[in-house]
Amino acid sequence: MTREVRVIPLTGIPEVDEGDDLAALLVRSADRIGGLEPGDVVVVAQKVVSKLEGRVRDLTEIEPSKRARALAGGDDPRRTELILRESRRIVRERPPLLIAETRHGFVCASAGVDSSNAHGPHTVVLLPVDPDASARRLRERIRELASAEVGVIVSDSFGRPFRLGTTDVALGVSGLAPLEDLRGQRDSTGYELQTTQIAVADEIAGAAELVMGKTRGIPAAIVRGVLLQGDGTGQDLLMPPERDLFR
Amino acid sequence: MTREVRVIPLTGIPEVDEGDDLAALLVRSADRIGGLEPGDVVVVAQKVVSKLEGRVRDLTEIEPSKRARALAGGDDPRRTELILRESRRIVRERPPLLIAETRHGFVCASAGVDSSNAHGPHTVVLLPVDPDASARRLRERIRELASAEVGVIVSDSFGRPFRLGTTDVALGVSGLAPLEDLRGQRDSTGYELQTTQIAVADEIAGAAELVMGKTRGIPAAIVRGVLLQGDGTGQDLLMPPERDLFR
Repeated sequence: MTREVRVIPLTGIPEVDEGDDLAALLVRSADRIGGLEPGDVVVVAQKVVSKLEGRVRDLTEIEPSKRARALAGGDDPRRTELILRESRRIVRERPPLLIAETRHGFVCASAGVDSSNAHGPHTVVLLPVDPDASARRLRERIRELASAEVGVIVSDSFGRPFRLGTTDVALGVSGLAPLEDLRGQRDSTGYELQTTQIAVADEIAGAAELVMGKTRGIPAAIVRGVLLQGDGTGQDLLMPPERDLFR
Repeated sequence: MTREVRVIPLTGIPEVDEGDDLAALLVRSADRIGGLEPGDVVVVAQKVVSKLEGRVRDLTEIEPSKRARALAGGDDPRRTELILRESRRIVRERPPLLIAETRHGFVCASAGVDSSNAHGPHTVVLLPVDPDASARRLRERIRELASAEVGVIVSDSFGRPFRLGTTDVALGVSGLAPLEDLRGQRDSTGYELQTTQIAVADEIAGAAELVMGKTRGIPAAIVRGVLLQGDGTGQDLLMPPERDLFR
């Protein structure tokens, strides 16, 4: 448990289009630096996965509703329309800023609808429909190509209440338990731990961001040396409504 | 910017007591694995820093107020009393769970008052009075001892709204800019980035947690390979009240 963790950027991955074999691009990039190893976690930026899955929308084809116009503030009401379509509910609003709960249950700005790194000025990228399924497909395809049993995380940059700046978190997870459960374990003085769960998948996603970055064109990274235990999904990281004090 | 980031546990650090030379212990531990390098970030768990600074309290010496008794739920009202003393305000309450804004401005469970890893069943550990000053002192002492210009982060495990599990965040920062500012930068398609600030200090703290952990007796880690830019404090990571939609 005391070994080093390495965060290795996966470089040389071209812009992807719908239907590309992203797993093959990831494996090829990894092969140039010695290849994937069993137990590696491959972290892939959500935006790449979304493009792969055709989750790009042309704003010129969107007709904003009355509600979207009302909430848009100074923003493009067609973009606001897409935010509303992607949302279960709006959690906080200060137009043009909308904090939404997405259909998956993620609480984030603009329901993850993002204009940066899109295909052009009139396009936006939506979150994958099912990021856990995206992670699982990538993992299975990587296993086929590289014969390595890896974990996969589909990550995105989220703001958070109370603190400035974004950190990357895990939207989709496959092949690792996203929460390390310490319940019942004792610390070095014998005291039963109160902080019972560590969101390791989010910490891994954040670590990967340190080498990926938004302006560097590096859409993926390997996090090597984390002891993978169990399995689970990105949905496991969502606070159940009955425990949520901030709804 | 595309080099690897390494997260290296600092092992063999004994339990610290008030007034110990923690920087010397960190440098000695690092020396066993090749020493600190310029640009390294040394991440130290808050609890060690707090013990060093005498922020341990004996509950048998605490007289709980009426308010503490009312808010304690099934918890020890003496502990609740300390939580109230450490807090500017209680942000959410569902006794015995209290989410507090600490005197520093951190929003976290129990105002950071923690019973795990304390000195015994009747003691608790409080957050450092000024984690930025703690980080700065450690950094200056490390510079004296190791002749290496490093960054220092004092980290703690915080829960967050909407998501399960804790991630480690930076309470105290010295020698690095905690926010990477992308305002005005353009992505690979020329689009001006909307997500303007990345909380790199929190991502570094989370990465360090992956090798530290609560039950492994590893209170510190080196994060190597992050390009340190500028300077700043943990206070820079706090959301200004006027921008906070979740107060």
